Amino acid sequence: MPATSENLIAWGDCDAAGIVYYPKYFHFMDVAFQALLRKAGFNHRLLLQQFGARVPLIDVSAKFVAPATFDDRVTVDAKIVHWGTKSFRVSYQGSREGAPVFEGFEVRVWATIDKDGTIKTAAIAPQFIAALSAAGGNDM
Amino acid sequence: MPATSENLIAWGDCDAAGIVYYPKYFHFMDVAFQALLRKAGFNHRLLLQQFGARVPLIDVSAKFVAPATFDDRVTVDAKIVHWGTKSFRVSYQGSREGAPVFEGFEVRVWATIDKDGTIKTAAIAPQFIAALSAAGGNDM
Amino acid sequence: MPATSENLIAWGDCDAAGIVYYPKYFHFMDVAFQALLRKAGFNHRLLLQQFGARVPLIDVSAKFVAPATFDDRVTVDAKIVHWGTKSFRVSYQGSREGAPVFEGFEVRVWATIDKDGTIKTAAIAPQFIAALSAAGGNDM
Amino acid sequence: MPATSENLIAWGDCDAAGIVYYPKYFHFMDVAFQALLRKAGFNHRLLLQQFGARVPLIDVSAKFVAPATFDDRVTVDAKIVHWGTKSFRVSYQGSREGAPVFEGFEVRVWATIDKDGTIKTAAIAPQFIAALSAAGGNDM
Repeated sequence: MPATSENLIAWGDCDAAGIVYYPKYFHFMDVAFQALLRKAGFNHRLLLQQFGARVPLIDVSAKFVAPATFDDRVTVDAKIVHWGTKSFRVSYQGSREGAPVFEGFEVRVWATIDKDGTIKTAAIAPQFIAALSAAGGNDM
Repeated sequence: MPATSENLIAWGDCDAAGIVYYPKYFHFMDVAFQALLRKAGFNHRLLLQQFGARVPLIDVSAKFVAPATFDDRVTVDAKIVHWGTKSFRVSYQGSREGAPVFEGFEVRVWATIDKDGTIKTAAIAPQFIAALSAAGGNDM
Repeated sequence: MPATSENLIAWGDCDAAGIVYYPKYFHFMDVAFQALLRKAGFNHRLLLQQFGARVPLIDVSAKFVAPATFDDRVTVDAKIVHWGTKSFRVSYQGSREGAPVFEGFEVRVWATIDKDGTIKTAAIAPQFIAALSAAGGNDM
Repeated sequence: MPATSENLIAWGDCDAAGIVYYPKYFHFMDVAFQALLRKAGFNHRLLLQQFGARVPLIDVSAKFVAPATFDDRVTVDAKIVHWGTKSFRVSYQGSREGAPVFEGFEVRVWATIDKDGTIKTAAIAPQFIAALSAAGGNDM
């Protein structure tokens, strides 16, 4: 069962063509990623506190199927579709009243921060994988 | 020769990790696309006036190579790398002092708007291709 | 009774200091204004269709009382506090768990659009005032 | 002599009415504030390193005189117009080809961060005032 975020499209989310300005869809994906973290008991602050880790993106893509405009309600479902050693893949499905609006993917890496502030990729903490899996965030 | 946009990264472009919030890179890509249109004598308003056309995205992707932070200067080069019948592909290279920051691709369609407001894909106007090609916006 | 919008602060709403980047508060105010319009049966599209009108801002201010960060829930209450002949004043109260986060004001004008596209201020349509008043959007 | 930032209005800065979405003007003001800091040899990172200080807003306002749209060039001039003991006032003038677009004010406080992360207002560091004054950032 994916994590879900509901987005009521705002006037300010739209461009001069009256439809959602496309970088906003990545914001909606990022918001859904936070819902996925929250479902497993995490957020960016806790990842840093518990694991000294951040989960920056290295790769992202989206396909836009249908335009959306202000006052539309766009639901975004997020789920993990692949766990690598140091990276994981998140899938996003955006829909409005059940009809697809967009779909996207993110590849995020597990990165730990040294005392001097340098950041480097590392093996994903097993507790992170376990918590997200237990929360039903996986779909593989 | 690609179109280029220069972006001085702002405080407000960065997230709580102190690096550019990733949807912003798509904004920078969109800004560079406008530089590409401008180079050929167009903008979104003129495309609508001259051709009754818009150029919405259907597919977009990016890879992030190195983080950027506020006060960094990120240059984005945009060029057309493929002309299809009804769609075209734009390539983006983001760099800071010559070193890569990100790269991205957009696929945009040529879409015309009927009198009743419905929008549908159509063959790209030859004048549009010719103008962008003459302006050196191609790299194929 | 004011219109209310609920905002779950996102990672991407925050700046490198880890708190909401202040222009976002105006976005939240604008979102609450749309909730106020919706409460009375309107949105920007319907105002244009029914009255040929837009309601652009001429004056806006905000005071920031306490910072907010990601995963905070910030409620924004919007209400009309003054109806002028051609302009009206909207008050916003932002709070988190009952404690104030910010307060703001907007002055918006009623502006009608001529056939040639020129926009000019005009007397606010009485139906607009009546509908917002009936919906309880006033507090005067 | 104020600090100046030049903003080429982007497609994505505009709303469905085709004009700049108003929260963006505060982003432009924030960008001009950074130009003002830079002119005196600072940025937010250096303020934190040198003084353990941040300069959060407590009060902000703007008046919008004329709309702007994409491809417009909006210049924003920023200057300090008042130094208080713990706060200072910044004035912003936005213009396009010499004609006013907006004007705004920010009141920012000098806030220092304790070891436990709590932030409290403090007397502005004299070196900060001196550097901004020497750089010509004042207009009083």
